[in-house]
This record gives sequence, C-alpha cells and structure tokens, in this order.
Amino acid sequence: MLILSKYLKARQKLVDAELRRQLPTARTRPATIHEAMRYSVFAGGKRLRPILGLAAAEACGAEEAKKSDTGFANALALGAAVEILHTYTLIHDDLPCMDDDDFRRGNPTCHKVYGEGIAVLAGDALLTLAFEIVADIRPPKRYPLADFVRELADTGGSRKLIGGQVLDLEGEGQGAEITPAQLRYIHESKTAALLTTAIRFGGMAANATPKQLEALTVFGHSLGLAFQVIDDILDVTQTSEKLGKSAGKDEAAGKATYPALFGLEKSRAEAARLTARAREALQVFGTRAERLREIADYLLDRDY
Amino acid sequence: MLILSKYLKARQKLVDAELRRQLPTARTRPATIHEAMRYSVFAGGKRLRPILGLAAAEACGAEEAKKSDTGFANALALGAAVEILHTYTLIHDDLPCMDDDDFRRGNPTCHKVYGEGIAVLAGDALLTLAFEIVADIRPPKRYPLADFVRELADTGGSRKLIGGQVLDLEGEGQGAEITPAQLRYIHESKTAALLTTAIRFGGMAANATPKQLEALTVFGHSLGLAFQVIDDILDVTQTSEKLGKSAGKDEAAGKATYPALFGLEKSRAEAARLTARAREALQVFGTRAERLREIADYLLDRDY
Repeated sequence: MLILSKYLKARQKLVDAELRRQLPTARTRPATIHEAMRYSVFAGGKRLRPILGLAAAEACGAEEAKKSDTGFANALALGAAVEILHTYTLIHDDLPCMDDDDFRRGNPTCHKVYGEGIAVLAGDALLTLAFEIVADIRPPKRYPLADFVRELADTGGSRKLIGGQVLDLEGEGQGAEITPAQLRYIHESKTAALLTTAIRFGGMAANATPKQLEALTVFGHSLGLAFQVIDDILDVTQTSEKLGKSAGKDEAAGKATYPALFGLEKSRAEAARLTARAREALQVFGTRAERLREIADYLLDRDY
Repeated sequence: MLILSKYLKARQKLVDAELRRQLPTARTRPATIHEAMRYSVFAGGKRLRPILGLAAAEACGAEEAKKSDTGFANALALGAAVEILHTYTLIHDDLPCMDDDDFRRGNPTCHKVYGEGIAVLAGDALLTLAFEIVADIRPPKRYPLADFVRELADTGGSRKLIGGQVLDLEGEGQGAEITPAQLRYIHESKTAALLTTAIRFGGMAANATPKQLEALTVFGHSLGLAFQVIDDILDVTQTSEKLGKSAGKDEAAGKATYPALFGLEKSRAEAARLTARAREALQVFGTRAERLREIADYLLDRDY
C-alpha cells in the first residue's frame, strides 16, 4: 500500500484529470466564461471530497483496476460533480456582496480576475454543470439516477448549503447572539452536508448495501463536524504562522464558533467525541476502510 | 373551448398553484432565503413557458382530466422547474454587476428588497430547486430521467443561457461590432433555448413520438426567435406608451438588435419567415395543436 502522502497525490492527479475531461475547454465559446470556470476549479484544491468518495467506493468493493466495474468510474464522475459544486459555492461566497475575499489559497479570487458579473455567471455555470455530470453516470442497481440528482439538489439547496451561508451572512458581527442550535446548523449545512454527500455518492456508485451506506453517512457527518470544531479551536489557540492563515480571524469578524459559545475545554471534548464516532462507524468495513481511516486521521489528528 | 384570454388565466392559476406547492414555504428556515425565492417567483410572471409546455403535452395526447395519466402532472411539474430556472436568471441578470435593474414588472428587484448577497443566494437556490423538481417526476416510457436533467443543464448552461448572458454583458456599448452570427447566438441562447426546452419537456412528459418531438423543437425554436426579432423591431418603431416600457432602450444601451444590424425591412421579413415556420411545424398535430397555434398567434401577431 502506498504511503498516504503519495496516495493522496496520485488520487489528486486522477481527480484533476477527470475535472479537465468534464469541464468545457477554455476555448469553448464564449471563451471568457469557460476560462473563468477553469480558473477557479484549478486554483489549487486538494480534492479531499472526491478522494474521500473514491475511498468510500473502494470500501464498498469498487476497484480502480477492473475495467468492467463501472462503480469506480461512476465514483470518479460523481466526485468531479461534487468538487465542481463546491467550487461554485467558493466563487459566490468570495463575492464583494458576500464574504468579500480578494484571495483564496494565495490566488486572486474569480471576481478579482474576471469581474463580478462573470464570477456570478461562472458560479451559476459550475452549479449547472454538476447536474449535467450526474445525469451522465450509469446508475448502479440499488440507486436510480433520481437518488443522486435529488441528494445533490437537497445538499446544495436552500435548506442546507445555501441555508448555512444565509445564516453565516446574517450572523456576522453578532457572534454571541447565535444559539448553539444555530451554530450546529451552520456547521452541519456548510461543511458536513457536502462532505457526507461526497462520501455517500462513492458508496452509492459502488452499489453499497443499506448497512454500508448508513455507516458511510455517520462517518461523513461526524468527520465533517469534527473537522469544523477542530478548525474553530485552532483559530483561537494557534499562531497565524502555524495555521497558514490569519489566526483569530473568526473572532475579529464576530463569527460564532464552538470555543466562543462553549469554551475551549468543552469544544475539545466535542471534537474528541465526534472523531471517535467517525472511526467507530467504519468498523463494519473491516480492513477495506483502511484508507478512509487514514484520511480521517490525517484530517483530525491535529494538535488541538 | 374557452376563449384564449380565459384559458391563459386558468392555466396561469394552475401553474401558480404548482409553483406554490414546489417552493418551500416562506417560513422554512432560514426564512430570509425562502421569502426572497417566493418574492421573485410570484412577482407577476405570465407563466408563458409552462403554459406552452402544457399545451405541447396536450398536443401529444396528455389529458388534464384523466387522473391515471401521469403525462399532464409531469408536464406541470416540469413547467414549474423551467419557470423557476427562468426566475433565477432574472434575479442574477438584474444584479448591479450585471444589467443593474432596480425594477421588474413594476416591482423592486430581488436585490433591492433583500440585498445583493441574498439575491445571489436566492438565484442559486432556485437553480438548484429546478433540478430537484425534475428528479421527482415519473419518467415516461420513451424518455428516461437522464434526458430531462441533461437537457435542462445543457439549456441552462455555459454554452446556451449563461453563454448568451456573457455575450450580452460583453457586447453592451459595442452594438455595431457584434456580427450577425453573434446576434443570432445571443437570441438563440437567451430566448429560444429555454422556450424550446419548455415546449419539448411538455411533449416528452406526454411520451411524444420522435416525429412529434422534432416538430415541437422546430416550433419552439422558430417561435422563440420570431418573438425576439419582433421585440427588437417594436423597440425601435413603437412609442414607449404603447410598449409599456421605455422605447429605444436597446439603442440607448448600445445593444445589438436585428434592426440595428439588418435594417427594419429585412428584420420584418425575417420575423415573417420565422412565424410561418413555427406555424408549419404544428401541422403534424392537426387540430390537437389548436391551442399552441393560438398562443403563437397571440405572441407573434403584433403590429411590427
């Protein structure tokens, strides 16, 4: 088995190739929009969501090497769809009328390069493309196409992903007034929901049994929430240098966070509880979930 | 048979009821986004696209009265999806970074009421909801669900609807420099594509034969283009009072139009040619396309 860093690099390349294949070329007319779409999709993402989806598919028996097995190819296409949908949310969240960010991962954001109008349209086009990609998979036995379209629309819709962004937008500068239930809702809808769908899509692509799919759902949900709580803790406790971004940024923006609402000690206990729950969920897969476990460790074993 | 004005009113009510059913209630949390979505969807649209879709379904044999016939119910749901997608394009087109319109049909636009951030998100949510509605239809024999999802994504995507808006955005103020091919592309992608899909969806919902679907495609395409050419002509020839909006607005904005590129005489000939082509296409349906023909007359028999 490849060591994790090499495995992640190899999978990132695989996902990038799939994204290049699924996106219209930069010369497709009108060129501006297709350039903008590719600019944002290839702005240095680690592709964690698609990589988790592929590992979930393998935990359910999909095999990359087996040509006759459509499970892996489906999981790869679905991973690209999720990543493309994720990219659209970043472009729109960065807009001046939203979080107003000029840089992301060190690069100028889409609207800084192409202007706000094109950035809005590039986001719209990526969201639309995500559904086009889903429409082209060959649905596995247990899960008809409607299941995939419905889940992507539900996760990306006004009750989850977009709903979380609404609360985030409305909550800025009134951090202390947000209730624990609202904070949980923001975390669930902004981080955990799409991560869970990415992982579930991998399992569904590989025709997961209902028991396997349930385990992947618990895993994804716990992983997503744990990741977010740990992020919140590190924003308070770490120096900017170690964090690679401005520490204390959440507090300065008046954003509600776990430590702000519950204190550090309780937040750490919650992170540990969620981490344990994510690991437990994988037990039904035995050794076939080795990679999923490794990736979870990589994401969660931080010094919090 | 009801006279046309009563028929259109009745169908508008039917479509509105379906839209109310498909949209989350205004009290669904977070309330702001759902209020904004409903505000824009119920801002006085005539529902021509869904109405055309229903008439196309009936031309292919769907019956409103027959409970066991899923064709009509499917056509109604698909009409709502198309109308919801159409509404999202209006919200985003009205944004300050796009066409910057404060009013639409006499009402303040979404971003004037709810702010730009919520307007971007409301548009995103409506686009996403359109696909969720499509996922819930019961696909007819000849057309699997993938056909509907793919077509909506293609029509709404970066090569058509969004592509047209890009060219429109880039073309403002340089009307004379746009080539006839580019102008045709804008018309096809911005008006004709979604109208055609609305009509095709009605036919597909009613399990249209390939020959019927081809006829509906030609009808929709010609109708959409004819409508746009006539609009362009009237913008030049009519007074603002008669038009119900500012006449000469296109010219003032430096927008490329048919009369600007080809002159009035040629534009009128083109409108007549496209109108005739739309009517011809309906011949295969005999008397069953009576309503489609009537609606086409209503849209095209203007004093141009």
